[in-house]
Amino acid sequence: MGLFSPDIETMEDLFKHQLQDVYYAEKQILKALPDMIEKATDPELKQGFQTHLAETERQVERLRQAFQSLGQEPKGVDCPAIDGIIEEANEVAGEVGDKEVLDAALIAAAQAVEHYEITRYGTLAAWAKQLGHTECARLFEETLAEERATDKKLTELAERKINQRAA
Amino acid sequence: MGLFSPDIETMEDLFKHQLQDVYYAEKQILKALPDMIEKATDPELKQGFQTHLAETERQVERLRQAFQSLGQEPKGVDCPAIDGIIEEANEVAGEVGDKEVLDAALIAAAQAVEHYEITRYGTLAAWAKQLGHTECARLFEETLAEERATDKKLTELAERKINQRAA
Repeated sequence: MGLFSPDIETMEDLFKHQLQDVYYAEKQILKALPDMIEKATDPELKQGFQTHLAETERQVERLRQAFQSLGQEPKGVDCPAIDGIIEEANEVAGEVGDKEVLDAALIAAAQAVEHYEITRYGTLAAWAKQLGHTECARLFEETLAEERATDKKLTELAERKINQRAA
Repeated sequence: MGLFSPDIETMEDLFKHQLQDVYYAEKQILKALPDMIEKATDPELKQGFQTHLAETERQVERLRQAFQSLGQEPKGVDCPAIDGIIEEANEVAGEVGDKEVLDAALIAAAQAVEHYEITRYGTLAAWAKQLGHTECARLFEETLAEERATDKKLTELAERKINQRAA
């Protein structure tokens, strides 16, 4: 980082910065998920988080492939956004006494994470296409479809069961 | 906040906590938008942010109505998630030297904010319905539709013009 000059001059720089941001974010999500699995009470929710952990591992692998296709080593940059989203999830979870209410809070937290990923992969895919990084665009779109599906599944589970039990 | 007891016992508590979280978030967004309007170069983007500022003011008003319908005074709680999202937007914007690249970065930042609001209002609407707060649910769904429309408009603007100019 230059102290007196901007670090992002071109769209290519911005794209790579965003890729590093998402790489860091995915690794923070990998660290946060085991705790969410442990806290979840409903077996279907627990299983859903477990499935998402395996999926997140594949998404991190796809990011490594994206770095490779650009001839770069995988590298993260600090991402205050995901740090804040995870911090808030932990804070709220720490304040919930009832197990069924906690399940509802955990779903909301997971959906905040999903939406962060949806917006970032959506942006990355559009930028990759614009810059001619077709292999990257393909990888991001694969992950984007998974994140959207996970978000939809969480909504379905919340509305079918979890919210009702918590209320 | 109790030091030795959880503060959120019921779904009603969780719902009110989330409402306070979003109230704080919207007010932070109100503070951040003038800076984004100033930084934007493309006139259509600048105008889009200006329109969204007016829309955000109406969304804050709707939150006040939601508090009122619950017989509560409007009150915010710290929301590390939106703080992180805005901090990241400022950090990235501060590192971008080129005006057209900055416009692309600003759209990405605005979409991260939109997605945070989409997930929170989606959750709030579902919880309000579950708890029988029909007036709140109606207010949240109105805002949710606006946030989704804004996100879509930003995607359209990015893909039609801004990304191409930046690349």
